[in-house]
Amino acid sequence: MPGPTLKDVAERAGVSRSAVSRTFTDGASVSEKMRAKVERAAEELGYSPNALASSLTTGRTKLIGLIANNFHNPLFLEIFDRFTRRLQDRGLRPLLVNLTDETDPENSIRMMRTYSVDGVVVASSTLPPVFAKAFRDAGIPVVHSFGRYSTRPRVHVVGIDNVECGRMAATELLARNYKRVAFLGGPESATSTQDRLHGFGAEIAKHPGVEMSHSFATGYSFHAGRTEMQRLIANGPAEAYFCGDDVIAVGALSALQDAGYDVPGDVGLIGLNDMEMSGWESIDLTTIRQPVEDIIDASVSLMASLLDLPDARPKARLFSCEVVERGTLRPR
Amino acid sequence: MPGPTLKDVAERAGVSRSAVSRTFTDGASVSEKMRAKVERAAEELGYSPNALASSLTTGRTKLIGLIANNFHNPLFLEIFDRFTRRLQDRGLRPLLVNLTDETDPENSIRMMRTYSVDGVVVASSTLPPVFAKAFRDAGIPVVHSFGRYSTRPRVHVVGIDNVECGRMAATELLARNYKRVAFLGGPESATSTQDRLHGFGAEIAKHPGVEMSHSFATGYSFHAGRTEMQRLIANGPAEAYFCGDDVIAVGALSALQDAGYDVPGDVGLIGLNDMEMSGWESIDLTTIRQPVEDIIDASVSLMASLLDLPDARPKARLFSCEVVERGTLRPR
Repeated sequence: MPGPTLKDVAERAGVSRSAVSRTFTDGASVSEKMRAKVERAAEELGYSPNALASSLTTGRTKLIGLIANNFHNPLFLEIFDRFTRRLQDRGLRPLLVNLTDETDPENSIRMMRTYSVDGVVVASSTLPPVFAKAFRDAGIPVVHSFGRYSTRPRVHVVGIDNVECGRMAATELLARNYKRVAFLGGPESATSTQDRLHGFGAEIAKHPGVEMSHSFATGYSFHAGRTEMQRLIANGPAEAYFCGDDVIAVGALSALQDAGYDVPGDVGLIGLNDMEMSGWESIDLTTIRQPVEDIIDASVSLMASLLDLPDARPKARLFSCEVVERGTLRPR
Repeated sequence: MPGPTLKDVAERAGVSRSAVSRTFTDGASVSEKMRAKVERAAEELGYSPNALASSLTTGRTKLIGLIANNFHNPLFLEIFDRFTRRLQDRGLRPLLVNLTDETDPENSIRMMRTYSVDGVVVASSTLPPVFAKAFRDAGIPVVHSFGRYSTRPRVHVVGIDNVECGRMAATELLARNYKRVAFLGGPESATSTQDRLHGFGAEIAKHPGVEMSHSFATGYSFHAGRTEMQRLIANGPAEAYFCGDDVIAVGALSALQDAGYDVPGDVGLIGLNDMEMSGWESIDLTTIRQPVEDIIDASVSLMASLLDLPDARPKARLFSCEVVERGTLRPR
């Protein structure tokens, strides 16, 4: 690619190439006067230091792999938006990796090595913990955003307590006096699904007068939610559902309305995430808000600190969720 | 970052470092026997060639800047999904750049230079043509996906004929005998908005018995569409609207339903894009389908060819759109 080189800047500034190189290397020694000369020449020429060439000296590429595996969930637009902005704020760049339908970390690790990324953010509540751990074992700093909480995590995790979210959903349904409730989860293999069901079931079990059932959609998508709800309707629906996430809830809502059920008159729904669309007036979904912005901000700042201290002991950082009351549950 | 080096592979294979280097450089000369030795050693050690180090020799980083500026439009999930897969299929990597609220190319060019990207895809129908051209002027191969068609484009453009789409929308409304029609566009500054209005207006103007008006939402988003439709409702809505795109249409639909209008009984709507959500049964939007997959596939394959022939004369490649009839216009 064309563009002025380090040599051009050195010639224009009338200094050595080494002086130019030191000016653009973080922490390298260079006098103020020299720096001013070099920066002026660089600006006049429109020179930018080559991050990749300098990475061979500094060992840093400032590239961060951003791994996602569900591009059908509208929540990911918000996730990509926030991640790219926050990484850009710190002079880091996201290398986007699409793992839809793939769960073997080997290919991703090879790819991350090829690009010498400084670190990897796995942004997924459905990829298993061993996935993120494989990066750590390969010596690549990793943060698992939206990952499963553990008191002794094997990698850095930033997310929510999905068991607690399940309890919150149960509490909301119980407070509204629903007597036949159900969990309509995402894929059973996802730890987030397992944990949400666990918390929901444990809270409901404290109330012997309340019946509970559960089933799983085949994915975190509108059509998976809609299809599973159609199946449930055939056997007579429960009074209220805690859905695996918002996009599943929106699919379930569509199936209920098509079958002539009024929501919340006949059947109640509560989701999880509070994706942007859930607040659209035509959807108006009652849900449990996952603080996506906080999770991403914390993930990026943790990643930035890992670049300096790659061997820091893995920690799990949890954020609290809250109920957002809209129009899909009957009043308390 | 740890991992086996070229030197380790050379030692294990019992060959020179130069032989290893040539094995992993496209087009470099190396005997079959030598290649087999080196590849076996590399596999045993789990070695991957370092794309960035080798870029200093080949001049190629295989990084492609992917520039987008509207993370609130659900269509972008499909766009990111397809782009990342297609680039990955060719061993290329997307470096995602978020330009929400930014239209000056200078920062992006600096950033693309810093990372020595091999090329840039501008995926936007709202960034002006001069934006993409600035990359070309900076010597960076560029493809403008969803860009404005021109018979003599200054950069490579892949997209649709927005004027023709406006005509198609008008034809659909005329065929249904609507007499008071309107264009509810996206931001007026976008060439896509201007072209859609132009085609729509030109077709309607051929029918003197049909009244037409137009106005603009402040963005391509649900809330911009909803707010503009609320304003229009206050003065009495038209019989049917061609909306700037699907997400604007979904916002307009929400405003109409809230105000007690039946769609399509009282007011008709037609969108543009056919984003995934428009086919959701609870939305069921009649729209004009933009072939997003074809546009992206052609953009990636054009970008790949530009890597070998960066000076190819800019061409505009157009794809045809088609009406997708669902539930928001009255029957013909």
